[in-house]
Amino acid sequence: MNPFTRQRAAAVTATGELRLIGLIRRWLGPTSPPAPFGVGDDCAVLPPSRHPQLVTTDPVIYGRHFDDRVPARAAGAKLLKRNLSDIAAMGGRPQWAVVSLALAPETRLAWLREFYLGLAGAARRYGVKIVGGDITEGPAGFLGAFLTLHGEAAAGRVVTRTGAREGDGLFVTGPLGGSGAGHHHRFVPRIAEGAWLAGQREVVAMMDVSDGVAKDVQCLTPHGLVASVWPPLVPVTPAARAAARRSGRPAWQHALSDGEDYELLVVLRAPRGEAEFARRWQRRFGRPLHALGRFQRKAGPEDVDWRSLHGYEHLR
Amino acid sequence: MNPFTRQRAAAVTATGELRLIGLIRRWLGPTSPPAPFGVGDDCAVLPPSRHPQLVTTDPVIYGRHFDDRVPARAAGAKLLKRNLSDIAAMGGRPQWAVVSLALAPETRLAWLREFYLGLAGAARRYGVKIVGGDITEGPAGFLGAFLTLHGEAAAGRVVTRTGAREGDGLFVTGPLGGSGAGHHHRFVPRIAEGAWLAGQREVVAMMDVSDGVAKDVQCLTPHGLVASVWPPLVPVTPAARAAARRSGRPAWQHALSDGEDYELLVVLRAPRGEAEFARRWQRRFGRPLHALGRFQRKAGPEDVDWRSLHGYEHLR
Repeated sequence: MNPFTRQRAAAVTATGELRLIGLIRRWLGPTSPPAPFGVGDDCAVLPPSRHPQLVTTDPVIYGRHFDDRVPARAAGAKLLKRNLSDIAAMGGRPQWAVVSLALAPETRLAWLREFYLGLAGAARRYGVKIVGGDITEGPAGFLGAFLTLHGEAAAGRVVTRTGAREGDGLFVTGPLGGSGAGHHHRFVPRIAEGAWLAGQREVVAMMDVSDGVAKDVQCLTPHGLVASVWPPLVPVTPAARAAARRSGRPAWQHALSDGEDYELLVVLRAPRGEAEFARRWQRRFGRPLHALGRFQRKAGPEDVDWRSLHGYEHLR
Repeated sequence: MNPFTRQRAAAVTATGELRLIGLIRRWLGPTSPPAPFGVGDDCAVLPPSRHPQLVTTDPVIYGRHFDDRVPARAAGAKLLKRNLSDIAAMGGRPQWAVVSLALAPETRLAWLREFYLGLAGAARRYGVKIVGGDITEGPAGFLGAFLTLHGEAAAGRVVTRTGAREGDGLFVTGPLGGSGAGHHHRFVPRIAEGAWLAGQREVVAMMDVSDGVAKDVQCLTPHGLVASVWPPLVPVTPAARAAARRSGRPAWQHALSDGEDYELLVVLRAPRGEAEFARRWQRRFGRPLHALGRFQRKAGPEDVDWRSLHGYEHLR
């Protein structure tokens, strides 16, 4: 559904700010606690935290992160899920969020309701409270929602992107590619997986795949090493396989470049063996942990040539 | 300065995301700590907090919160100061922030540099670290920066908007009105004042003036009472006086409706006398605490008729 309307009576501008805030709080329901813990004062007041805290911020903007093909509920859920994926990538437990909204006066109230119901559904599912926000009028045709998500390092340990060494294994929590077919808003953030992985000492680095493995893996690769990945190992989604048939490029190229996978890239140093680790994972989650390759001084002759691929670079 | 350029070489789109992030970190300087405490991983990692935490979010959007008359540095400082004012209004101490940027590809890199230098200057002055952020391409002509600020209740006590009772006095920390003349970006957030006020038991409620006293005072007024304010008591800025001369409306009307004052509205229950309290304030800050009026069951015949004024309501 298109977020905008030409009928003034159906637009947010006919509602007024105070009533709109009231509606949003109703749409959010129990995920929006009363002030001072939630919306309604100059700040939200949160209790002290005993664990290290995690914070991340990501928006969804109309025309960029979703379009008319994406249901408003899915766009609202995606706003939270994008940020949840970042908390998952550090092994954290999500807690609360604030949402800053900039929207054209002609934004359809009914669209916004669906958007917030989608956000509230995801918030309920992952135990997140929406404790504050802001609404500002934006220019015609603009709709952006900017969320900041807060969590804590529940496992007592935070897994960063830094930590890989020569010989460490590179794994991924699910098949890759084909985001254009709708995965970019239907994905499931790997919260439980990230928390479990952070609790395993074999996991020495981790991140989520948002811009495509080809770009993101560079963040895990220490200076002087390469991520040596053998193309037949790359797990590929059916959507990436279909995209490959259309484009004529190999499916693994789609899988490594498409972006918005929101699976976790995991670096493993497993003295008891990677196979044993993968079996523990399989028992816990009922699906495979996929080996991609290894960090080495040199790539093999048949390995992925990362320079020939490109992940998603913004502002290019 | 206008934030946009037609020369591609001078625009952010010629820079690319990775280099732009590097530049922003350089512009932010020491206010941008290294990962994992700052930018560079999936989340920023912050230490546990012993005090109750405060969080607020406010943006600046081109054409709405600033325009070509506002220097880019002042726009960047305003982004943080707007949020600082909310922390001040609860009596908190600011700590760290994340910034989500949505900007047109034709945004001038030199403009963005000034913006971030202004943000960094304000962050340094108030001891705030910029620990994370996001950059997303927005539509042509759009530039918005969405900041979430985090603080803690350093006084051990949070002052909310709720708490006024019949007979309590209403005060304000400075003269009001005339935001159009530039105060809307030159203001000083009342951090030290808010923290001091939160440490005084006589202060039973507090908020900052962002939408104009006429609108904001409603948030402090308990059901069944009115804020009885005598117009001659209203402290007026020279800018509001000049605006009054131009408009023909009384200066106190400008002072109560203009908005973006960013002074603190303070509700006082002072058994030892309000005058004694105001003297203590004056000794501490070297300028007067202005009495506006009192919460009562009925307004006097010469009191401000709030319904005849209007504060700033967004989306109207």
